[in-house]
Amino acid sequence: MVFSSVSATQQRDWPWIRRRLVEIVGRDGVVRRKEEILTYECDGLSAYRKRPALVVLPRTTTEIAAIAKFCHEQEIPWVARGAGTGLSGGALPLENGILIVTARMREILNVDLENQQITVQPGVINNWVTQAVSGAGFYYAPDPSSQTVCSIGGNVAENSGGVHCFKYGVTTNHVLQLKVVTPMGDVVTLGGVVPEMPGYDLMGVFVGSEGTLGIATEITLKILKRPEAVCVLLADYTSIEAAGNSVAAIVSAGIIPAGMEIMDNFSINAVEDIVKLNCYPRDAAAILLIEIDGMAAEVKAAKERIKEICLAQGARHITSANDPETRLKLWKGRKSAFAAAGNISPDYFVQDGVIPRTKLAEVLTEINAIGDRHGYKIANVFHAGDGNLHPLILYNSAIPGDLEAVEKVGGEILKLCVAKGGSISGEHGIGADKKMYMPDMFNEADLETMGYVREAFNPKGLANPGKLFPTPRTCGESAKMINVADLKNSKIF
Amino acid sequence: MVFSSVSATQQRDWPWIRRRLVEIVGRDGVVRRKEEILTYECDGLSAYRKRPALVVLPRTTTEIAAIAKFCHEQEIPWVARGAGTGLSGGALPLENGILIVTARMREILNVDLENQQITVQPGVINNWVTQAVSGAGFYYAPDPSSQTVCSIGGNVAENSGGVHCFKYGVTTNHVLQLKVVTPMGDVVTLGGVVPEMPGYDLMGVFVGSEGTLGIATEITLKILKRPEAVCVLLADYTSIEAAGNSVAAIVSAGIIPAGMEIMDNFSINAVEDIVKLNCYPRDAAAILLIEIDGMAAEVKAAKERIKEICLAQGARHITSANDPETRLKLWKGRKSAFAAAGNISPDYFVQDGVIPRTKLAEVLTEINAIGDRHGYKIANVFHAGDGNLHPLILYNSAIPGDLEAVEKVGGEILKLCVAKGGSISGEHGIGADKKMYMPDMFNEADLETMGYVREAFNPKGLANPGKLFPTPRTCGESAKMINVADLKNSKIF
Repeated sequence: MVFSSVSATQQRDWPWIRRRLVEIVGRDGVVRRKEEILTYECDGLSAYRKRPALVVLPRTTTEIAAIAKFCHEQEIPWVARGAGTGLSGGALPLENGILIVTARMREILNVDLENQQITVQPGVINNWVTQAVSGAGFYYAPDPSSQTVCSIGGNVAENSGGVHCFKYGVTTNHVLQLKVVTPMGDVVTLGGVVPEMPGYDLMGVFVGSEGTLGIATEITLKILKRPEAVCVLLADYTSIEAAGNSVAAIVSAGIIPAGMEIMDNFSINAVEDIVKLNCYPRDAAAILLIEIDGMAAEVKAAKERIKEICLAQGARHITSANDPETRLKLWKGRKSAFAAAGNISPDYFVQDGVIPRTKLAEVLTEINAIGDRHGYKIANVFHAGDGNLHPLILYNSAIPGDLEAVEKVGGEILKLCVAKGGSISGEHGIGADKKMYMPDMFNEADLETMGYVREAFNPKGLANPGKLFPTPRTCGESAKMINVADLKNSKIF
Repeated sequence: MVFSSVSATQQRDWPWIRRRLVEIVGRDGVVRRKEEILTYECDGLSAYRKRPALVVLPRTTTEIAAIAKFCHEQEIPWVARGAGTGLSGGALPLENGILIVTARMREILNVDLENQQITVQPGVINNWVTQAVSGAGFYYAPDPSSQTVCSIGGNVAENSGGVHCFKYGVTTNHVLQLKVVTPMGDVVTLGGVVPEMPGYDLMGVFVGSEGTLGIATEITLKILKRPEAVCVLLADYTSIEAAGNSVAAIVSAGIIPAGMEIMDNFSINAVEDIVKLNCYPRDAAAILLIEIDGMAAEVKAAKERIKEICLAQGARHITSANDPETRLKLWKGRKSAFAAAGNISPDYFVQDGVIPRTKLAEVLTEINAIGDRHGYKIANVFHAGDGNLHPLILYNSAIPGDLEAVEKVGGEILKLCVAKGGSISGEHGIGADKKMYMPDMFNEADLETMGYVREAFNPKGLANPGKLFPTPRTCGESAKMINVADLKNSKIF
């Protein structure tokens, strides 16, 4: 893969660049104070930090296009940032580049209930979309855990998921059309408001491209009708294998629940310690939370079938909740799992991998063995329907070398996922954090083909350089040899 | 958009090329007899015909890669062909090029019921996939009308739809992974067998790329569990508007039927004349066929709701069928609609356009007005849930100028679809037939971006040149000025 490279050490006239950007976005659109710039040093992956040379806050497509064009002419690399909640360092800034932040682009541009569509600016927060249409009985399906703070622009860049994505799909299944500013400063429309569009599905390529192909400035999303009925089931098990097998058995029976989540004994207790719900059985090896939705008759029938299946697979008890309050209570523990890990350990490292659903039980056993071998406790919570694992590796950043050791453990888990026929990311993206694992999943020709497409959009390599793909190999350097330490020390990144 | 162009008039040593191809695919893999070559002159769009210089029938990925590499070195343009049932001339051969036919690649490579996946060669026929897994209670959802004869490779190239695609999505929603030979002869893997893969979604780009990015040689498809219950409803109306409004009202109520099809009075009578079902009311202005599937309780509840909605929208009668035999009978008329048009008219021209579902009624009125204005009868059958229209314009090719006039009528209908916020193709593709309408849907920058991606895969422009995109503009020639006549007379096409 060959990208035009931008010199990391190039001396630039930053005051002049700043003046040019002020002409585009106005004085209040360029962040000046050093302490303010500090807040942009990292995204949700706070272990990696870089101070950007400049931070700009455009308000319109025209402003973003002008910034991109200017950067293209001047060959200045840039990174786009939404709310900065990403967990793979995709919005990590460049020390010699510009950070383009969409936080002021928070307008809902159009609501079309008749055609079940809504068009928003990229800075709109995920759950504002549902709020804007819930009065009329609609909602926006993808629901990452960060949905109260993450932005739609970031969701598009990372192809975000959530607990309801087993039935409804991830972000890419809910985006209809994008207005995009390319790294050359062109404004293009990808996708369309009717279901099928001719030509290449470049909208699909853009969703999940992690800021390497441009910035989406207008995003048209599908909204769904709220289901008539919703039911949450909690099944508890004396073995995690039985929980995993229940998931496979439910799907094999042709039932598609809205979501299926598993938490292991360690997570159950961590959560009960902090949230004190008294509804998760502390002695269970695992619990399985299942949400079903649809027409009332459908939900009722599915509930009975699922109960039968879980009991046949060895569930001890099954609780169910139809009313919103009890449903919320059953979910609350799952939603607090990350916070609970933070409560019992100074730090935790969230991994994000995917395995075929049918291999859940065996992979969980192996993950715990990896943790034991390295002496780290691992809490397991995951989107079981999709086979999307989120092991939380507990550690202490105050202990020298602990982060590096934990990253190694995380890497072993990813390699295990790949070996089982899975993937190195389910929904958190590759960003800066996992790019060195891409060659474990893709061969040279596969990566080269993606590189060609990147070059088509981003010929000078200015949009989010050094993310998503393994760093360009030079001097016979193997991509597999690039490690996290190199990554964090490199200037260009 | 700039494509490297291949000279149409270049003199080639075809006997030498043939010998080289025989070395790759064996003597029985190169079609020799002139009468045999004749059968490859056109696809389902029989109005366009070209005799290919050579026809090859490879059996493996390795053979196709060798052919592509040879063509790349020798700069020989080529077209891939599956079963040749496409309706937009996507597999129309090149007089100075090679036709690569996948008809001998008919192996089912792997069936993985546990993970609900099947891997097939591109020449496998659509409904063989269902046949291979139906014993275990599974099926493959996309069901184009031609499903007993069309190939999976062609379905992937054209992103084929079908009557059940309203609920289940089109081909792109059912392909998990592709092994692809690029026009440079590289073998790459796109997508993956787990739901979400990192990197660019190039599998999504490939599906529907109409043979311009390479040939899929191994296709892994999602298979679904057969639903517990299926019910077909037939509602009849005294106005087509009421039928259209019923579709919008059903969707607004949050119900997702497996399929919804409308037929107008003219189609109803044409079908009853030929199939003599005696179950379509001949005096109805329109009928709406609705299929619902899922768990028995769900289907029962949905049936009642849909009946209420249709009656409230003005349906006269509603018939329903739960048993397979009666269901098949209700569907038979719809499936015979094209044959019925062929029965009452010497020729018919099928158009394929999309409009927002909510505009069905008004667009149908305008389509009939267009027909009246030009003096052509138009039969309307369509996938109403998706807003995917299939007007059948009846004509007589024996009358000089009739085809050209009807193409003009078809063009007016497409422009109407675009004006209503729709699209120029729902499922038949662009191919040779509609490329001149692409600038009606996409602006210069949009098409240029697609062109860059095409060049990334297909740098010499050898794979299916002259299809999908408007012909390269040279000498200040406007893309909009290229008409069907030019298209049919051009050597390079």
